[in-house]
Amino acid sequence: MKTCVQKFGGSSLISVKQRKQVVDRITRTINDGYQPVVVVSAMGRAKDPYATDTLIELVKEINSDPCLRNMDMLLSCGEIISAVVLAETLNQLGYTAVALTGWQSGIITDENFGNARILSVNTDLITKLLEEGKIPIVTGFQGCTLSGEVTTLGRGGSDTTAVALGAALSCDTVEIYTDVDGVKTADPRLIPDAPTISSITYQEIMELAHLGTRVIHPRAVEIAMEAGIELKILGLDQLSCGTIIRKGLSGRIDPKQISDRVVTGIAQITGCAHVKISGVEDFNKSHLTLIIFDILATKGVSVDLIYLSPKLIAFIIDDKMSALVREVLADLGLNITVDLGYAKVSVVGAGMHGVPGVMARVVRSLDQANVPIYQTTDSHANISCLIKEKKLAAAVRALFDEFELSKEGVN
Amino acid sequence: MKTCVQKFGGSSLISVKQRKQVVDRITRTINDGYQPVVVVSAMGRAKDPYATDTLIELVKEINSDPCLRNMDMLLSCGEIISAVVLAETLNQLGYTAVALTGWQSGIITDENFGNARILSVNTDLITKLLEEGKIPIVTGFQGCTLSGEVTTLGRGGSDTTAVALGAALSCDTVEIYTDVDGVKTADPRLIPDAPTISSITYQEIMELAHLGTRVIHPRAVEIAMEAGIELKILGLDQLSCGTIIRKGLSGRIDPKQISDRVVTGIAQITGCAHVKISGVEDFNKSHLTLIIFDILATKGVSVDLIYLSPKLIAFIIDDKMSALVREVLADLGLNITVDLGYAKVSVVGAGMHGVPGVMARVVRSLDQANVPIYQTTDSHANISCLIKEKKLAAAVRALFDEFELSKEGVN
Repeated sequence: MKTCVQKFGGSSLISVKQRKQVVDRITRTINDGYQPVVVVSAMGRAKDPYATDTLIELVKEINSDPCLRNMDMLLSCGEIISAVVLAETLNQLGYTAVALTGWQSGIITDENFGNARILSVNTDLITKLLEEGKIPIVTGFQGCTLSGEVTTLGRGGSDTTAVALGAALSCDTVEIYTDVDGVKTADPRLIPDAPTISSITYQEIMELAHLGTRVIHPRAVEIAMEAGIELKILGLDQLSCGTIIRKGLSGRIDPKQISDRVVTGIAQITGCAHVKISGVEDFNKSHLTLIIFDILATKGVSVDLIYLSPKLIAFIIDDKMSALVREVLADLGLNITVDLGYAKVSVVGAGMHGVPGVMARVVRSLDQANVPIYQTTDSHANISCLIKEKKLAAAVRALFDEFELSKEGVN
Repeated sequence: MKTCVQKFGGSSLISVKQRKQVVDRITRTINDGYQPVVVVSAMGRAKDPYATDTLIELVKEINSDPCLRNMDMLLSCGEIISAVVLAETLNQLGYTAVALTGWQSGIITDENFGNARILSVNTDLITKLLEEGKIPIVTGFQGCTLSGEVTTLGRGGSDTTAVALGAALSCDTVEIYTDVDGVKTADPRLIPDAPTISSITYQEIMELAHLGTRVIHPRAVEIAMEAGIELKILGLDQLSCGTIIRKGLSGRIDPKQISDRVVTGIAQITGCAHVKISGVEDFNKSHLTLIIFDILATKGVSVDLIYLSPKLIAFIIDDKMSALVREVLADLGLNITVDLGYAKVSVVGAGMHGVPGVMARVVRSLDQANVPIYQTTDSHANISCLIKEKKLAAAVRALFDEFELSKEGVN
């Protein structure tokens, strides 16, 4: 019998109504002739009484710099709770579901606590349970080192668990359930009528994910791509057809379906600070560029949208890092400005490569919407613009209209 | 270097003040030249946001009869939380403490989920951590089967973990910290001036534990006795000298210290229902006795204080079981009464064996205090009386005075 990995967010286990939807999705898979392997993430965060955030706060009040190894052990409880809740929901209905921790599921990782990478998956136990007709409910986001330490996989880790299991079990498809109906052409909080993208390439979804669309973790897509697994991003509602993520045809979506799609979707990252450094004759003639980026790397500051020139260095950072960056660069004797309130808006499309005039359309549409551009960057599959965060809604609407993204996604 | 196992209840990790006391107890052990191995139980139950009871309720709302295996996995999170909290409290102070799950601590159990028995302890990892100068913080109450299933040890399981580790690590002493200063001669809620018993035999403490004194689990005492480990029951306060549990001399406490102690302490169990069954010519001439106890065993009803006679069968049960017992015995065509509101009060002392007149003193003191006795039982080391629960305080006070238990415990 074929196996299907289905990943559910922990938030979809809190209410009776949502649990029923989760169960419907699992039983539909069974009725379709598949054996489900279910992956769950932690249930609530801050708001719930069984929230892991409450625990993290408790420990951080005691020790602001806790040992990552111990914290991983603590965090792993969140998914264990979810797995047991879902397993017992299914057992109540007459199925036999078995909750499994990361280590019981054979998820072996490196020792990079808090952000571990899956090294291998030993599916012996899961395969045995499937042979016995049972439903394994696997705790996402967690694994175990070879020496038996509990690890967590970092943000989006449950997606990664699902895809890694899908690959190890030779599944054709892995289903990732979210609270939205698949991937939208633009953020539905800004564009309520943004349609669902019916089909997207691995590369496009990775671009969108890296550029701020929070639907699936890029690492999960990478593993799926390498293993050739089709990913489905679905809403819990039975009517949801969601988004299929698969190989493009020469980097493009199936041309029969979408022949002229230049831009597939819009992504954005908010809460950016714009850093500009000047005050030297020529950055090329000093080692200051190296020194600056060395300092930032040592302090763990991620930089993005980097612009290097003889007279000016510019980049963006998470605005929470502003004070730190000001402080660590203060002694270099340079002119440094750190401005808050920026956002990075990006258009993404594997089809824009080699298509002339895409940048011109981006600039024109933003100009017409009175959105000043402070910096840009582009690759073969995306164009990103730094804008003021208060202009974000206007910018996304302008790009959405310019690239006719309301037409996308009719299944 | 010598090792000392110290077990702390999870409730002593909730407040800053108590955590400080716990740390003081651990550091004092280090200063005394020992390497501590710390065992913790789950932090809060129902009242706290990080309570396991909240989780149990959540699952039981979904499935009133959840799979014990899955529930054990859920329950194991409670002690993991405690272990991480204590480890990070110590790390903050410059120690290196490592939280360990039951399976990481090498606690191997049978597969009796919810009430598993420790089969063996593999101390390799703990020994390695001790050699590295680290403080292992072990999650009590939990273990792992040989096939990798998470198990819990049932009530008092953390005490059992502590003693089993003490035995495996060849410790001389295991310290069990509680919220009272050792074992009192009577329940301090009933007799506020009841002194602490300074020294008690394994057998006496087991009797007291079985008869209702909630200080340490009998199973933990049994392991300690078999391994010849001295147990200390201590309060968190630095001034607490607590109670030492060790071998008696020919079944008695060290005679130099306490030469004439007949009764060591008083224990009680409340919430009892008294079941009386009659209505046959002779129970001996029917199979009804067997049928009755078979039915009760099948339904999981524990019976105690059993009295069998030709015309009458009587016993006590937990009053929560009353309705069930009435129901399952209804069809036998017998006269059955189930009366609520009873308590069992017991005097315990290894020294009462062979001492004449102890039962007479019990009966006289209860009679003088106007406490009717509804049933009794006795062994070589205890006498138990069934009384009305509303008479409990009077009964305990009468026995406390009769056996001069206010004199006990001067260290």
